Amino acid sequence: MIKLYGFWRSLASCRVRIALRLKGVAFEEIPVDLMKGDQHADAYKAINPQAVVPSLVIDDDAPLFQSMAILEYLEETQRTPPLLPPDPRGRARVRGLAQIVVSDTHPLIVPRVRDFLTQDLGIDEAKRNRWIENWSMKGLQAVEAQLVKEIETARFCHGSAPTLADVCVVSQVFGAQLFGFDTSSVPAVMRIFGECMKIPAFEQSAPLKQPGAPAKVTH
Amino acid sequence: MIKLYGFWRSLASCRVRIALRLKGVAFEEIPVDLMKGDQHADAYKAINPQAVVPSLVIDDDAPLFQSMAILEYLEETQRTPPLLPPDPRGRARVRGLAQIVVSDTHPLIVPRVRDFLTQDLGIDEAKRNRWIENWSMKGLQAVEAQLVKEIETARFCHGSAPTLADVCVVSQVFGAQLFGFDTSSVPAVMRIFGECMKIPAFEQSAPLKQPGAPAKVTH
Repeated sequence: MIKLYGFWRSLASCRVRIALRLKGVAFEEIPVDLMKGDQHADAYKAINPQAVVPSLVIDDDAPLFQSMAILEYLEETQRTPPLLPPDPRGRARVRGLAQIVVSDTHPLIVPRVRDFLTQDLGIDEAKRNRWIENWSMKGLQAVEAQLVKEIETARFCHGSAPTLADVCVVSQVFGAQLFGFDTSSVPAVMRIFGECMKIPAFEQSAPLKQPGAPAKVTH
Repeated sequence: MIKLYGFWRSLASCRVRIALRLKGVAFEEIPVDLMKGDQHADAYKAINPQAVVPSLVIDDDAPLFQSMAILEYLEETQRTPPLLPPDPRGRARVRGLAQIVVSDTHPLIVPRVRDFLTQDLGIDEAKRNRWIENWSMKGLQAVEAQLVKEIETARFCHGSAPTLADVCVVSQVFGAQLFGFDTSSVPAVMRIFGECMKIPAFEQSAPLKQPGAPAKVTH
């Protein structure tokens, strides 16, 4: 049995959820409520000492951690459909697009960082929201700049089928939508997001469609 | 010819430098002075629209971007010595350790983020330094927690030869040392750092050994 420890609002969990569904892998999602601090419970830290989601546990093996490492593992062990192109340059481009989101965007807006800004640095809510919007949109704009520059951009980020780039970019668009940000500066990103939303694996993995999610978010 | 656009102080550039040397790939490093803002010059943004280092340019091909994507590309195209283990679970562990640094640690302390804290949010220098130390050490402590928990930890992060985990962890230790942080809370990390420093590819890639670096850093 495959268990995904995740949270409805976690964009990193969302990526793994999408990839599992794209590859047709059955899994059970176990919610770890980041808002209540459940990630800091000893039982969860025994699974993930960093106290973050997602973790992927397959049978009784050691838990897998870090969303990109999990995505690469799924790609290596469940080859169909492929989420990386066959050529090293194409793979580098897809991973580069994915990492703009996974490294340079999302880690700046996670709950532990938002909490440090307000609780430790004494930042007020207006400035905190400016911080979240700045990095969310800078990240998507960096993806946009690569997408419009390169001829490999097609129906999806890289060609005519979804890749890990789409998985990661879509997760970040979900985040921008949860916060209510204006995404009109990233039209190529939003066109591709629309294409992905036609695919059930993406559409069913949206944060607001997960158990525990509210009907609507009040930022 | 292989050109690495980097900067002496950039920890992401450092990772690529180490991997190129471990694999014996000849390269020329072209400095992009992040302190002077050279990354925002139009000429550089034509290479890397995100205005970050590193970029890797091979012959006249499209520039490769994002350090982890570049490391994976080097691994796929220059197989000797391997920097990922052969088994998918081992690869997931190595990538997971690498991503703790590359995603959850380093992006929080890069110049653009430090500048936003001071210039846009009005954070003073003492609080800014607390921010940098908090995330630097939280990241290394998360690596430490994984290292002490898992039996694959040996002379290096994963077994008896360096992997991408060591490449990334070493870059972050270099960063902690540049800032003068106390690393006594991460003994396993520092033991492995010491092992890596015996290898010329690591030792020669240290920030302070690069052209343009000062003899000593005044944080």
